[in-house]
Formats: sequence, C-alpha cells, structure tokens
Amino acid sequence: MRVLILGMDGYLGWPLALRLLARGHDVAGIDNLYTRKAVDEVGSTSGLPILSPEDRVHAVRDIMGKELEFIVGDVTKYSVLSKAITKFKPDTIVHFAEQRSAPYSMINVKHANFTLRNNLTGTINLVYAVRKYEQRNPGKKIHMVKMGTMGEYGTPNFDIPESPYVNAQIGGKNDKIVVPKFAGSWYHWSKVHDTNNLLYANKIWGTTITDIMQGPVYGTRTKEITNDKLFSRFDFDGVWGTVLNRYCVEAVLGMPLTVYGKGGQTRAFLSLEDSMESLRLLIENRPEEKGYRVVNQFTEVYSVKDLATMTKEVAAQQGMNVEITEVENPRVEENDHYYNPEHKILPSLGLTKPTRNIREEMGIILKDLAKHKERLEEYKEAILPKVRWRK
Amino acid sequence: MRVLILGMDGYLGWPLALRLLARGHDVAGIDNLYTRKAVDEVGSTSGLPILSPEDRVHAVRDIMGKELEFIVGDVTKYSVLSKAITKFKPDTIVHFAEQRSAPYSMINVKHANFTLRNNLTGTINLVYAVRKYEQRNPGKKIHMVKMGTMGEYGTPNFDIPESPYVNAQIGGKNDKIVVPKFAGSWYHWSKVHDTNNLLYANKIWGTTITDIMQGPVYGTRTKEITNDKLFSRFDFDGVWGTVLNRYCVEAVLGMPLTVYGKGGQTRAFLSLEDSMESLRLLIENRPEEKGYRVVNQFTEVYSVKDLATMTKEVAAQQGMNVEITEVENPRVEENDHYYNPEHKILPSLGLTKPTRNIREEMGIILKDLAKHKERLEEYKEAILPKVRWRK
Repeated sequence: MRVLILGMDGYLGWPLALRLLARGHDVAGIDNLYTRKAVDEVGSTSGLPILSPEDRVHAVRDIMGKELEFIVGDVTKYSVLSKAITKFKPDTIVHFAEQRSAPYSMINVKHANFTLRNNLTGTINLVYAVRKYEQRNPGKKIHMVKMGTMGEYGTPNFDIPESPYVNAQIGGKNDKIVVPKFAGSWYHWSKVHDTNNLLYANKIWGTTITDIMQGPVYGTRTKEITNDKLFSRFDFDGVWGTVLNRYCVEAVLGMPLTVYGKGGQTRAFLSLEDSMESLRLLIENRPEEKGYRVVNQFTEVYSVKDLATMTKEVAAQQGMNVEITEVENPRVEENDHYYNPEHKILPSLGLTKPTRNIREEMGIILKDLAKHKERLEEYKEAILPKVRWRK
Repeated sequence: MRVLILGMDGYLGWPLALRLLARGHDVAGIDNLYTRKAVDEVGSTSGLPILSPEDRVHAVRDIMGKELEFIVGDVTKYSVLSKAITKFKPDTIVHFAEQRSAPYSMINVKHANFTLRNNLTGTINLVYAVRKYEQRNPGKKIHMVKMGTMGEYGTPNFDIPESPYVNAQIGGKNDKIVVPKFAGSWYHWSKVHDTNNLLYANKIWGTTITDIMQGPVYGTRTKEITNDKLFSRFDFDGVWGTVLNRYCVEAVLGMPLTVYGKGGQTRAFLSLEDSMESLRLLIENRPEEKGYRVVNQFTEVYSVKDLATMTKEVAAQQGMNVEITEVENPRVEENDHYYNPEHKILPSLGLTKPTRNIREEMGIILKDLAKHKERLEEYKEAILPKVRWRK
C-alpha cells in the first residue's frame, strides 16, 4: 500500500512512518517543520533529541534498510499537496498536519486565528485534492485518515458513539443528527469544524474517511524505535506537553507532579505503541467505499489525578521521590463528569486490550528521560502552565 | 445608543445604518467594499445603482440631515477592528462583515478557503476585541449582534428552537446539547463554525451575543429608502442573488423564472423592511448580560416554487407575462422535507406579522427594477446558475 503522511515530522507522524515501512508499505511524508519552530517560540524543545529531516531519512536507511520520501512543505498551500498526491499516487493519506496544542491556540487572538485557519485550510485542501485526483483517475479511491481528538466531544452525559451520526429525540421528534460536540479550546474547536467539513465532503462527494477521535498519547518507544536515532519528538512543556509525558519529566527533574485543579478530569489514554498499532489497523482495514468511519482511539480511561498517583509510584520504584501538587487549572473544564466513550471498532480489528502495561511504559519513559536530564533541566521554566483560558 | 456596523456597505448593512440614524442612534460602520469587487469578479453588478462610500455619507447628510462615519477597512485585520472600537466606543456591534454567498464558496478550493478563513477570522477578531475593550472599560458591556442564517440548520425533522442549546435524548440518556446543525455549502458551514465559536466565547468569557438565524431577504425599499440615492445594493445573479430578488429580475427581463429542481425547498423569508425592523428591535432590546440569544428571523414560510407562482401573478398585473421553468438544481439539498422553525422572540418584541404584504412588495421591486432594465439587460448572462455543488 502507498501511504502519504501529512505532518510526518510530528510525535505521531514519525513513528507511523516507521511502523508502515516495517510493514512493507511505501511511505512518503510532508511536513513544514512548524512544530519545531512553535515549540521553540514558547521557550521549550523536544525532551528527546530528534534528527533533522535529512538525517531522519538517512537513519531509516541505515537502521531499517528502508527508503522514505520526506517533503518539506506546507499543506495549507494547495499546490504543494496537490503535486505530492499526483506524484506519489497514494492509496491512503494520513492527515496529522495540524496545529495540535490547546494552550497554544489560547495564547491570544493571533494564535487563535492561526490555529483555526491553519487546521481548516489543510483539511479543505485535502478534500479538494483527493476529489480532483479521483476524478482524474477513475476507479481510484483514496482513503483519508484524519486525526481528530476525543476532546471534540467535551464531557457529554450520553455515551459517545463510534459513528458520525446518532439518533436523537428532540422536543418529542426523532431525527438523525451529527453526534453533538462541545470543545474546550480553539484548537479543539478547529477539530470539530474539521469534522463538520469532512462530513459535508463525504455527503456531497463521497470522500472515504476515517475520522479518529484519539485520547492523549504517552510514551517514547514503539516496536521500531529501538535505536535512539529513531526517537520521535517528546513534548513536556506547559503549551505542548500532554499530561502523562509532562508528569514523567517532572518526576525526572524532582519537581512535584502538577495536577490541574482537583484532577477529576477523566480522559481516554493510550500508549504511543498502541496508537501506532491502531493506525496501522485502520490503514490496512479501510472502511467501505464512500464510508465515514468514526473511531474512538484509546485503550484505557483514567482521571488525571489517577495518572499522577501511578507516575509517583513508578517513579518511586526508580528511586525518584516526588510529590503531587494541585495547581490552579488554567483551562475551563469540568472536574467531575460522566464519561463513557464507545470502544468497539479497534477491538473488532484485533486491538482488544493495551499491548503494554501503563506502569511498565511509564518506567520506560522515565529511563529514556533520565538519560536526557540535563537537556530537560535547561527547559524547566517552560513546564508550568502560563496560558490561562480566562486570563 | 452607539452602534458600530461591520459590513455597512452591504445589502443589509446600509439600510440598517439608515434605520438606526432615523431612530436617533449614533452610527459608524466599517466595510472593505469586498462584495462590490466579488460581484464584479463573477461578471455581475448591483441591479440598482449604488453610490460610493463617500457619496453615501453625503447623501445621508443631504437627505436625512444625519452624520454617519464610514470607515473603509477590513475586520479580518485585528488592529482595524480594535482601533475602531476603541475610538467609537459602541454599545452594540452588528457583525455583517462576512462573505455571504453559498455558490461563491463552492466555486473551487480557493473560494472555499477564502470563505472559511474570512468569516471565521472576522468573528474571532470581534470576540477578542470586545473582550479587550470590556476589560479596559470596567462596567461596559458590548452587545454583539451576529448575522447567521436559517441555512445553518439544514432541514431537520425536529422543530428548530430559538435557543442555543436544546434538551435531547440520545441512547436513552438525557443531555443539553448545542442545537444540531447541518449546513449545505462551505458558506453555510462557516456560519455554523461561527456559531460554535461564539457559543464558546460566551461560555468562557460571558460575551453578550444575539445570534440571528435569518431567512432569505427580498426587497428594494425600507421606510428610509425613499430617495433612489439611498438605494442599497441589489444582487440578482446566479452567485450573489437570493431567490425572490432573482425571480423579479427575470420577470423584468421577460425571462422564465428559474426554479432550482422541483422547487419544493421550503424556506423562511422576510422583506428588507422587516429585516430592518427586526434588527432595530433586537438592538434596542438587548439580551440579559452574558446572555446568548438565538433568534429565528423571518416572517413567512414558502417553498421556492410558491414564490415563483406569486412572482408570475404579480408580474402579470404589471403586464409582464413570464413562464416558470425548472432548471437542474445546482445545489445538494432536499426537495421535500419537514420545516418548522420556532418564531417567538420577534413577535414578543412587537413584530407579530409581516409589515408589508409580500405581493405588494413584489410589485414595488418590479417597478424599481423596471426603471433599470437596461442595466439588468447588460448582465443577463450572469443570472443562470453556473456553480455546481457536484461538478
């Protein structure tokens, strides 16, 4: 299979390229290297060192014996995307090329607008480019795999289904409606808008789409990342880091683990390895032609306080004794809430449970990070949240 | 009251400025004159001649004896908007400054992106500028009046409520959800995204908002437009014209009235005079502080076929004998569907029924247009729809 990855330089894009190459697929990727610059902008860096695009390609050749095409370019420019598709002739396009930080989108009006424009434009360009390609190549159907987020739903009282539409009763009348969503930042809203735009493209043009609602990912390793030269980026700062990865850095630096608010916020998580395995399964098992498949991509559900407690315990086993502290929640979100997302599609494809135990995974992360303690120490200032939703 | 109108040069913006001035309010407006250029881009023009911004201000002074500030500027530039607010100190800001043609948004990827970016950016700029102004001027609350469209809802099976949220039962569980929407073009989706963004601003910052879901407007006159120098623009082409205004131009030119598809599409309409009266009522009666008021703004419900039949009859009375013809519907929309929007807020403010009879109004439109037959003849080619949703 030929797979084009938009946003291949990112935390998920890079290990996905490795996974697909290892499976024997042909892989090309596009990235504008924006995340590298934007993490720098907020005074931080990847917690693990990563190679330049050129060196990444060399490392893949040397270590895995595989060829990989890495195009440095911006998918918000239609011609960049359109040319790459015409040239590479993908069967599947994975779309990760979006600004993916909620706090970054909340910094100010400029960052809000950037996030909405950047994310919506890339997705609109993609549906148009796919449509043009399909019209010019009769019989060819591209499967578009789009990364959304479980955060699109917010924390509803109903069970979150794995489907684009759901039956609802409103004012005594029945209707099929788009699954209701309510996001918690301009970033999350950009993903909701993307989903709505994709549903529309699917309706009028029959674009074949897998829309992945993923929970926060943690981890430093996948089956392919056995050599440190193949590391993916690892963000831990207040703007770019996700919760568990940030806790692990705090533990390594001997800082208290910072729980936002009371920590009752319950989310669906998965390891980097399971994210890759899920993506592989979805890519190798496409939905029916003209289908719109929504997948809730996670393996386990925890509150952020639970995760802090687990991190503290695992860190203690490695001789790191850390406290847990509550910091004022910079976000606007519910502390106590119902949370029950459906989770059937990935099990039906074979991923029935986490392939790695979360505590073992935490142990691996802590060990990887400990080797880079000096690097992390340098960016310590960037860890606490500075962007406040209601500032 | 001090009212700032974003998009004051448009079909609704201009007569609203006149209405508010006549009521004794202080009015300023911003417009980048984009619609003038974009109508020109598709080979058309306003069916009634309109003055330049400078001459509009002079005409208002001469005819009404009122002063009006007209700022030529683009609200997608944050500083333009922010400065205008700081200087004018509005109590109310009316936001019409959006690309408002569905077919224009469907021309190609460039127009799709332009529509989404332009519309979302103006609205985001506005909520940030309002917030900054309120923070710097304690005690001051700006009422934001945003033009949306009844088209945000699509054609649902439930009764369309006048509220941002609605109770729904999903999978046996009850929840309060955002009123479900499903739009029919990138333009309409841009308005849905705007609504979602505004709901979020209201939630986290308490921005006071009236979100108007308006049906298609028809007409050439309001109480203030008694002198032809005060005419608002009047669009009739396949890209920019709304249905009834287009029928009237076809009648004047002796062309068949073009019904899209079978014409069963049912929509909620109102005259330009009633649109102005509704807006005045909503501006002079603001919602509670930090409130989010959704108003379904229309006075009558018709199918597009009904409207064609009425136009034919009224035209016949003026000696214009025209046929009705069905053209292939360029859009993707339902022909037969349930349609029952709630309509309580405007009646509760005093607009209990249409102030003008639709047939009389059609007669006035036909007479106004007949005087400009030569001008319309010149742009005849632009009337039939050329933009196809599935082309």
